[in-house]
Amino acid sequence: MLMKTNSEVSDINQSPVARQVSFDKYEQKGKYMSIRIGIYGYGNLGRGVECAIRQNDDMELVAVFTRRDPQTVKILTDGVKVYHVDDAKNMTDKIDVMILCGGSATDLPVQTPELAKLYNVVDSFDTHAKIPEHFENVDKSAKASGKVGIISVGWDPGMFSLNRLYANCILVDGKDYTFWGKGVSQGHSDAIRRVEGVINGKQYTVPVPEALEAVRAGKNPELTTRQKHTRECFVVAEDGADKAKIEKTIKNMPNYFSDYDTTVNFISEEELEKNHSGIPHGGFVIRSGKTGANLENNHIIEYSLKLDSNPEFTASVIVAYARAAYRLNNEGQIGAKTVFDIAPAYLSAKSGEELRKSLL
Amino acid sequence: MLMKTNSEVSDINQSPVARQVSFDKYEQKGKYMSIRIGIYGYGNLGRGVECAIRQNDDMELVAVFTRRDPQTVKILTDGVKVYHVDDAKNMTDKIDVMILCGGSATDLPVQTPELAKLYNVVDSFDTHAKIPEHFENVDKSAKASGKVGIISVGWDPGMFSLNRLYANCILVDGKDYTFWGKGVSQGHSDAIRRVEGVINGKQYTVPVPEALEAVRAGKNPELTTRQKHTRECFVVAEDGADKAKIEKTIKNMPNYFSDYDTTVNFISEEELEKNHSGIPHGGFVIRSGKTGANLENNHIIEYSLKLDSNPEFTASVIVAYARAAYRLNNEGQIGAKTVFDIAPAYLSAKSGEELRKSLL
Repeated sequence: MLMKTNSEVSDINQSPVARQVSFDKYEQKGKYMSIRIGIYGYGNLGRGVECAIRQNDDMELVAVFTRRDPQTVKILTDGVKVYHVDDAKNMTDKIDVMILCGGSATDLPVQTPELAKLYNVVDSFDTHAKIPEHFENVDKSAKASGKVGIISVGWDPGMFSLNRLYANCILVDGKDYTFWGKGVSQGHSDAIRRVEGVINGKQYTVPVPEALEAVRAGKNPELTTRQKHTRECFVVAEDGADKAKIEKTIKNMPNYFSDYDTTVNFISEEELEKNHSGIPHGGFVIRSGKTGANLENNHIIEYSLKLDSNPEFTASVIVAYARAAYRLNNEGQIGAKTVFDIAPAYLSAKSGEELRKSLL
Repeated sequence: MLMKTNSEVSDINQSPVARQVSFDKYEQKGKYMSIRIGIYGYGNLGRGVECAIRQNDDMELVAVFTRRDPQTVKILTDGVKVYHVDDAKNMTDKIDVMILCGGSATDLPVQTPELAKLYNVVDSFDTHAKIPEHFENVDKSAKASGKVGIISVGWDPGMFSLNRLYANCILVDGKDYTFWGKGVSQGHSDAIRRVEGVINGKQYTVPVPEALEAVRAGKNPELTTRQKHTRECFVVAEDGADKAKIEKTIKNMPNYFSDYDTTVNFISEEELEKNHSGIPHGGFVIRSGKTGANLENNHIIEYSLKLDSNPEFTASVIVAYARAAYRLNNEGQIGAKTVFDIAPAYLSAKSGEELRKSLL
């Protein structure tokens, strides 16, 4: 991808006034501009965002914020400083979009509304049931500050949600199916590790092939939890631990495993390290629906992901939406948004003309 | 789907002023409103649009326009009148969105810019190379009339384009693949029927399974035309025709067949009617791309369609975008748009709140 000047990047759907704003802000004689990004929280997702920024020539990492002692945090990008989160409030003139890389349980419900008072923000809030509440909180902050806050960006919620929406709008009479995996569930892996006698463990969620095939064949099956996914566990047990008991404890664990066909494999720490250290994931969103004068024709829309690294893919989606946040705010838009509210062209550094020519 | 009042339908992203406009225009005491649709051209696609409108409770078919004698055209919807195309100019107060169902070769390049002078329009213009020119023509008309014109809606261009765009924005370093089929190619079927000694024929475009698998496996193969698709022909020959000659003529036809591995099957008219009268289609859009500090992780994004009826599915996409055209114009937006320019929420009759709750 070629470097773009700000006026080119901001071409689509942008009023002359908005274009002027961004131009004034960044143009330096003889120098290309970038969208200046801050990363707030530096775990797997934060590192993924850092890598994704390097793949996008119109973006620049400006700062990483951490709750740890900044001295102890080593990042990948030369010349970029790590700050304590308390310093985030002082860099509003240096950062265009703050990407929040904390967890959905306790971090984001507080951090996203708080940071939206100062910055355009993007987060990956993924507690589906609490999205309406989170949206309201971010909306209030972002409207007050005149910023844009895009929440729940990633693949589910995110790309999977988008595909559910498009497919529902096209096939009005139909049925949705979402399958996850094959991939590592962090929550289920954590649950295994809490079992007595377990040193380490990893859990894969696996879609049942027969269920997938029935859906793809347009059979519109009613599927129970057990019929949709199986759970595969790889467990490192303590020396002399009661493996039969560990297996039984895992398989009967309510909420996590008892509703599924679960297999438990005992392996060595070395084997776990060698074969199960990645964080792959993925899944399938399928809608099966009918059209015609008598609904006589069936259609299948399928979207699937096969990801070597769950956090790096999520980060790549987030970074594209950071571009959208920047451009929408430059146009004068404010408040909370989700992937549903954003025209796809905003995600691309290319102009509308280029997109129509090359991708339509 | 429940019927919606106009204010509910128009809830998302709409200014109070815009909402007032649509409210004034339609509200009748105690009666629900609909988006009033006209169909311009009544072939396979027009009939598909008619069926799709019946599946969307917030829409109403108001009129069908034809170049034929209207008396000779029988439609499926009771109480809706068929008019000659010349009457289209007189119904601007009765139709909110005109859906153009003509062909891309000669109809749409003229009709869409013409009708955009009077109506919000949606078309399925699919001559990829001429999209920039068509966009400009429709943009000019629609800006002058203060209407919205959404062009190139369907599945390719359309849903496939959207998936190419999203996938390109997420996986910056990657490779795109589009496979078509298994499905009927009208152009290739027509070409078969022009061969001497052929009474009737149908051609299926079929993706090569090995090519698809190599792409899905992240092997990023360089594929020739021949390696991506095969062509299967079902041909009804005249009595006593030289079948060997017909087969050779088809297989060597430049542009259509000579670059492909083509099979020719001779069958009876009855068999053609019985087994090959449908218009199925579909295909696959796949992007394979890399992320990580050293681009060490691979990801596959795949979108696929399996359609019993190509025109009915295309029509279903178009009808969802007709809703968007109506709502965008109610907000005061004008000019040409493509699927790239339209936020997904505009396609749905549900409010932003409902969408976040149910589909995000």
